Amino acid sequence: MTGDDARTKAGHGRRGFLKAATLGSAAAVLRPSTLLGQPRSGRSLGEGVGGYGDRSPFETTLRRVRGSRYAQAAGSLTPLQNLNGSITPSALHFERHHSGIPEIDPSEHRLLIDGLVDRPLVFSLAELQRMPAVTRTYFVECSGNGRVKWSPAEPDTDAQAAFGMTSCSEWTGVPVSALLREVGASAGASWVVAEGADACRMTRSVPLDKAMDDTLVAYGQNGEALRPAQGYPLRLLIPGWEGNICVKWLRRLRVVDQSYLTREETAKYTDLMPNGEARQYTFVMDAKSVITRPSGGQQLDEPGFYQISGLAWSGRGRVQRVEVTTDGGRSWAEAQLQDPVLPLAHTRFRFDWSWDGSETTLASRCIDETGDVQPSRAALIAARGTQSSYHNNAVQGWRIGRDGRVENVDV
Amino acid sequence: MTGDDARTKAGHGRRGFLKAATLGSAAAVLRPSTLLGQPRSGRSLGEGVGGYGDRSPFETTLRRVRGSRYAQAAGSLTPLQNLNGSITPSALHFERHHSGIPEIDPSEHRLLIDGLVDRPLVFSLAELQRMPAVTRTYFVECSGNGRVKWSPAEPDTDAQAAFGMTSCSEWTGVPVSALLREVGASAGASWVVAEGADACRMTRSVPLDKAMDDTLVAYGQNGEALRPAQGYPLRLLIPGWEGNICVKWLRRLRVVDQSYLTREETAKYTDLMPNGEARQYTFVMDAKSVITRPSGGQQLDEPGFYQISGLAWSGRGRVQRVEVTTDGGRSWAEAQLQDPVLPLAHTRFRFDWSWDGSETTLASRCIDETGDVQPSRAALIAARGTQSSYHNNAVQGWRIGRDGRVENVDV
Repeated sequence: MTGDDARTKAGHGRRGFLKAATLGSAAAVLRPSTLLGQPRSGRSLGEGVGGYGDRSPFETTLRRVRGSRYAQAAGSLTPLQNLNGSITPSALHFERHHSGIPEIDPSEHRLLIDGLVDRPLVFSLAELQRMPAVTRTYFVECSGNGRVKWSPAEPDTDAQAAFGMTSCSEWTGVPVSALLREVGASAGASWVVAEGADACRMTRSVPLDKAMDDTLVAYGQNGEALRPAQGYPLRLLIPGWEGNICVKWLRRLRVVDQSYLTREETAKYTDLMPNGEARQYTFVMDAKSVITRPSGGQQLDEPGFYQISGLAWSGRGRVQRVEVTTDGGRSWAEAQLQDPVLPLAHTRFRFDWSWDGSETTLASRCIDETGDVQPSRAALIAARGTQSSYHNNAVQGWRIGRDGRVENVDV
Repeated sequence: MTGDDARTKAGHGRRGFLKAATLGSAAAVLRPSTLLGQPRSGRSLGEGVGGYGDRSPFETTLRRVRGSRYAQAAGSLTPLQNLNGSITPSALHFERHHSGIPEIDPSEHRLLIDGLVDRPLVFSLAELQRMPAVTRTYFVECSGNGRVKWSPAEPDTDAQAAFGMTSCSEWTGVPVSALLREVGASAGASWVVAEGADACRMTRSVPLDKAMDDTLVAYGQNGEALRPAQGYPLRLLIPGWEGNICVKWLRRLRVVDQSYLTREETAKYTDLMPNGEARQYTFVMDAKSVITRPSGGQQLDEPGFYQISGLAWSGRGRVQRVEVTTDGGRSWAEAQLQDPVLPLAHTRFRFDWSWDGSETTLASRCIDETGDVQPSRAALIAARGTQSSYHNNAVQGWRIGRDGRVENVDV
């Protein structure tokens, strides 16, 4: 059948409206009816109920370890190209550890809040869980996400390698503002130093205004307790800001009068600019997007209808618009956004497309509610040079070959 | 410190606003500062990065199997009392199987759509995944959820046993309306018969209007593929309607001109009323809520501040309001709802409360956007008798003893 056939048949009977085929060139993928035999899997009793479920053995998508000498000081990447919706399964949330994942007994873990406060206090997890809580869906993104894009495109780089250090979860925890009200911050307080309980004692300085705004001490992730790789039993969750500042295995918040200029905000997580100066306090993650289907390493079987799908996000607020090009950037059109579009969260976008079998390049760009537009790679490099590892939010292109193979390409 | 102490100290310095302690009687739970030594877990390198993450070995909450002779024809219950937010982890989504979980190779699975259609078609999973998709957060609830409430309250029944056959996921799939437009439903089409690929070939009749409205053929759950216990690789997802009609391991949609009066809509999943007649087509799940913290089997350690937290939902649309009583039903007050409040999804509610150490009873009631109010157990039984297994949405009470123990009680 073709779209024209379907339209010709439309309009008959009470439910004739059902006859208007909508996919046009998708027709080629729909095969004629065949009798369905009872498959082997349905001929006998299956597995019974169980305590904690596994995924299907046919599902094998994994995080991929980014090359590193030590697994304890490495990163792993979320397989964005294999996921649906906007939530990242906790088991596939990207990782970046600086001295491995400590195994913490939650009944022994404590959070100390001290420094410029009236009443330094220590909280157990049970005490935190009695306090007023909020649940919010936020992305967490490594500021090194997109670092491969500072170099010219390698054809074999896929969505996981290009942009797989971002993930999105439903987090539950106590607002830091409620905790700081309990301890009573003193005059002069203007920063908070957060410290982790891992072997390197990861330490970052957080401006007090952001801590008082929307920052959480999170204990819940996607319904369950935090996963160990995400800071079990407590992590600082600073919405929209670079992942490294969202200190995992959080053990201390010290209220202070200045930034502490830790290694993680001086030697690391700053960006060397063309003029030799470093950008410091590049907290906010910029507007970004990536098409995840079709994307690098995937294969289009034949010409026809394919719905393009991807993710967009911005550390400045809501995604306002995502534009997609299917002709290598000559023209751009607006994609559909899956609602609800939540601030500081991954937003799924979709774009209906028919591939005619010729070579072309797909790409997306995100525009956030502040008007921030995801830049081309050329524009980003013109402004920032190539001496940084961090904060590359350039547009990601995917070239479709005549053979249907999808490859990474600069646009 | 006490709340009064905190208020006395408020108002000093530039950030004096931070000094107003908000928790009042929570003071008792906050202990004075102690020096934090480096815990053993942080003295050496921890675990490295990995492909697919596990939860902490300290987290042991499980689904609980509801008594049954055969695990393949049993149910398991979500541990609502141990969860945060509104998403249920896929590994803890409740189960109800009629002949076990078939192990299906997704590359071999097919969906046949035939019957009163112009063009019967068979879809592979890959073909469905090229089509226009949507992602929606919906609860799925067994119509037998709450069945224990037809009998007088057993003190030891906890939230999992009382209401654990409801779960909520982010589902991704193809609208059935798009599929029916492809096949072209004929004149006279008014129902769709859905059939599963499990050994019992679970079969339910679905009114065409609902199928065309918001029903999905889902392949994604919480980012990943569906879990096997939830219908991998395809399930029918009929938002707000009883779980049994959301046919798992979906293999066929047959467009027909009448309900097929299957076992699952005649002998089962109907409710025997006091007058001897059965309610049939009790598709919609009514307004419901349950306090999950504090709840049955939990223990309050001492008087003081406890934020009450729970879940509310309705098959008729959005939760509009949740009311909480902390005095056994003499007075009710409005709880906070966690936004976004999504239609046909679990909504987390919270209510600030200080326990004075005396015996009392907590309960919640849900009011949905249609004005439907969750009834008391007495009112429900007056209307429906006690001869049914299904659709009990009565208010759930939890009695707090002087010793802080929480028990199930009728209110």
